[in-house]
Amino acid sequence: MRAGAPTAEQSTAAIVVIGNEVLSAKVVDANGPWLLRELRELGVDVRRVETVPDEVPLIVESVQRACASAAHVFTSGGIGPTHDDVTIAALAQAFNRRIVNDARSLSLLEKKFAGKLNPALRRLAEIPEGAQLEWHEQAMFPVITLEQVVILPGVPALFQAGFTQIRERFRAAPIHSRAVYLSLGESRIAEHLDAAVAAFPDVSIGSYPRFDDADHRVKVTFDGRVAAHVAAACNLFVTRLPPGGVVRED
Amino acid sequence: MRAGAPTAEQSTAAIVVIGNEVLSAKVVDANGPWLLRELRELGVDVRRVETVPDEVPLIVESVQRACASAAHVFTSGGIGPTHDDVTIAALAQAFNRRIVNDARSLSLLEKKFAGKLNPALRRLAEIPEGAQLEWHEQAMFPVITLEQVVILPGVPALFQAGFTQIRERFRAAPIHSRAVYLSLGESRIAEHLDAAVAAFPDVSIGSYPRFDDADHRVKVTFDGRVAAHVAAACNLFVTRLPPGGVVRED
Repeated sequence: MRAGAPTAEQSTAAIVVIGNEVLSAKVVDANGPWLLRELRELGVDVRRVETVPDEVPLIVESVQRACASAAHVFTSGGIGPTHDDVTIAALAQAFNRRIVNDARSLSLLEKKFAGKLNPALRRLAEIPEGAQLEWHEQAMFPVITLEQVVILPGVPALFQAGFTQIRERFRAAPIHSRAVYLSLGESRIAEHLDAAVAAFPDVSIGSYPRFDDADHRVKVTFDGRVAAHVAAACNLFVTRLPPGGVVRED
Repeated sequence: MRAGAPTAEQSTAAIVVIGNEVLSAKVVDANGPWLLRELRELGVDVRRVETVPDEVPLIVESVQRACASAAHVFTSGGIGPTHDDVTIAALAQAFNRRIVNDARSLSLLEKKFAGKLNPALRRLAEIPEGAQLEWHEQAMFPVITLEQVVILPGVPALFQAGFTQIRERFRAAPIHSRAVYLSLGESRIAEHLDAAVAAFPDVSIGSYPRFDDADHRVKVTFDGRVAAHVAAACNLFVTRLPPGGVVRED
């Protein structure tokens, strides 16, 4: 991917959030929404987000599905020394790898803890065989990459620090966007949306109604890799609307 | 389920969020986190949350997986008259049903629009054959139930209004919780967690470190359907810790 401009298919991603604490509503997941914004800004098309419990079989299945549906997969959570940190075990199983000790991690841990590593601390050096580790200054955990999967810790500050260190690796062609805000309800615009959808198959068109006292009733968005197609789809749609239908555009 | 107290297996749920706008970071999904809190309060154990694009094959696959993994499935979004509203079509396909017009919906729409229904408005009356509709006062959309799947609109106010009307149907035995906040790091407590995990297999135990200037370094949570087991697991863990390890409990 780093050689030459990435294609749209190489610019897809999936996110797997691992955490009973999210499913049990103890915390609201911040990593998924944050990474969605980052990936969008990078031009990466996210195909799915799954939140699964701290259970190896479910993580394995979810990671395998994510790998089948996107070029890049990011996991959040389940990294650490306790019984509920099972992401490394799940990734090893998903890719049929043994779990091995990473020599550099072990040496860093031994330095930090003056050689007194209990089994819990030793677990912090375990990786699936063949995984790549990237240590960054001040980072508490390395970024671990196994094939197309980037493994990040769940604590938001560490998750964000880890991704930020590697984010430019994923930069793709930009996704161009237009939006129009309408005074018309969805049932008045459906046929015009259909016309734009049919004419520009490479433009993703969304229609978002609201039922509050906003200045518009529907927001319509146009997204695509080819700026001229996005603009043309938007223009085709707008010119079909009755006068006064558009409140504003951006 | 309404006859007698629900068992734990009947008290599981999965959530499918349908929406390109979430995956493209145009909006942060509010419905998933809101419903997670509601279901938790009701004693329902959520097994997975998936966010998928407005694409029929992906929704079908996600709903079928959700149905296989939980007693109750909730979908958010993709309801309406425009091209990107494909949830009804996907549900019909997932359950191998025809799409039919709901007579009452059609009659309500004809009254509201003085008999002038264009194809887009007619789509609002379409349901998978055999689905149950529940209209509630002031609701703009009915709650649609097909087998174990509850279909809710994506606009947060409508999503919440729909679920709120039916929420008591899902009330299950409460999930009891305890939490302890520790001055110790995770590597110091891992073996004690293991002991509690081994002794109380019906208690879900989570360990959540933080690396900021909070009053504690790790929060440990204990959750289960049997209050005495939750308390005993927590007590077993706490009594194994060195003096001064616990900052506070709740």
